[in-house]
Amino acid sequence: MTETATARRSRLTPEREAELYAAVLDLLREVGYDALTMDAVAARTRSSKATLYRQWGGKAELVAKAMRHNKPGPDISSVDTGSLHGDMHALVRSQDDCAIEQNSALMRGLAMAIHGNPDLLKAFRELIIEPEMVEIRRVLQRAVDRGEVRPDNPAAAYVLHMFIGAFVARGLIEDQPPTQAFLASYIDAVVLPALAAPTD
Amino acid sequence: MTETATARRSRLTPEREAELYAAVLDLLREVGYDALTMDAVAARTRSSKATLYRQWGGKAELVAKAMRHNKPGPDISSVDTGSLHGDMHALVRSQDDCAIEQNSALMRGLAMAIHGNPDLLKAFRELIIEPEMVEIRRVLQRAVDRGEVRPDNPAAAYVLHMFIGAFVARGLIEDQPPTQAFLASYIDAVVLPALAAPTD
Repeated sequence: MTETATARRSRLTPEREAELYAAVLDLLREVGYDALTMDAVAARTRSSKATLYRQWGGKAELVAKAMRHNKPGPDISSVDTGSLHGDMHALVRSQDDCAIEQNSALMRGLAMAIHGNPDLLKAFRELIIEPEMVEIRRVLQRAVDRGEVRPDNPAAAYVLHMFIGAFVARGLIEDQPPTQAFLASYIDAVVLPALAAPTD
Repeated sequence: MTETATARRSRLTPEREAELYAAVLDLLREVGYDALTMDAVAARTRSSKATLYRQWGGKAELVAKAMRHNKPGPDISSVDTGSLHGDMHALVRSQDDCAIEQNSALMRGLAMAIHGNPDLLKAFRELIIEPEMVEIRRVLQRAVDRGEVRPDNPAAAYVLHMFIGAFVARGLIEDQPPTQAFLASYIDAVVLPALAAPTD
């Protein structure tokens, strides 16, 4: 972030910023990304469009920042239970079923839009995917250091793929939102066995 | 299918039916499900809306039937290589990269719509998900019979979840379409180790 951007950002209190992000996510769930306009965000939050553009640059960055900000539960980086099994289950328990379902609804609303909007894909990858990957790599590195995961296990590159599958497919296949119980079962059945597999 | 429905359906030649389905999928990729109208299908295929409704009942069933009909490659039920590893890799090889990418694009176009349209979700589940599940269960049962998969392995319930994750996450995380090579690597790293895991 440049000094100018920092100075500009500081005009908003953290409370006001949180309020803005919450309004953006509400709108996103209501109308989807394509129909979400900066006008609607400005109206709902009683701010000027000029302020929104000055603070965030554009719709894609505003939406990705809002998603990143409202990521529920404790920071994944504070999780360190001493075992891969414990860490994975702690991650799932950090979101209650309501938060999980809200995140799923947001992801569905964005899935189509992301592929048609390079700006949104870029913001989404930088602000959501990349930080998740960094934390997953940290959890896995500890598991490798403890000897729980082989350093060359190819499943390590696919942890986020496995989780995204659980989130997306649950609604399509079982017509149910992903829940803590479902995700815990999926971790034990799929994620941990794949990561624990011996490699040649 | 009732006798009346059979009689009605028989008015279309298989070639004409295939042409109609191809046009529906083209429109779906171009405008998405919500913006796809029976008027547009009728115009593009030079048929009457009455014919479309008489044959398929509605947009949801027409779209799901078109997706089912255009499923590329040999029928999964004809695959029987003698090993789970062979069967899984044969399934991936049955679609070339172009077909995989086209299917991914269709799925993205439907992901949002499916959750907002109970008719589409129902048709999608009956015509796409259920037949896939039947075939996957058949492949898995043979693997159980051969002693490759424990009959109580919990990953068996999640094979489609794992694959959907590979399809969806590839674009989000790596900004690349899923390819045969990627899916083969994912099968070896995730699907087969999870299915081969010993159970307690």
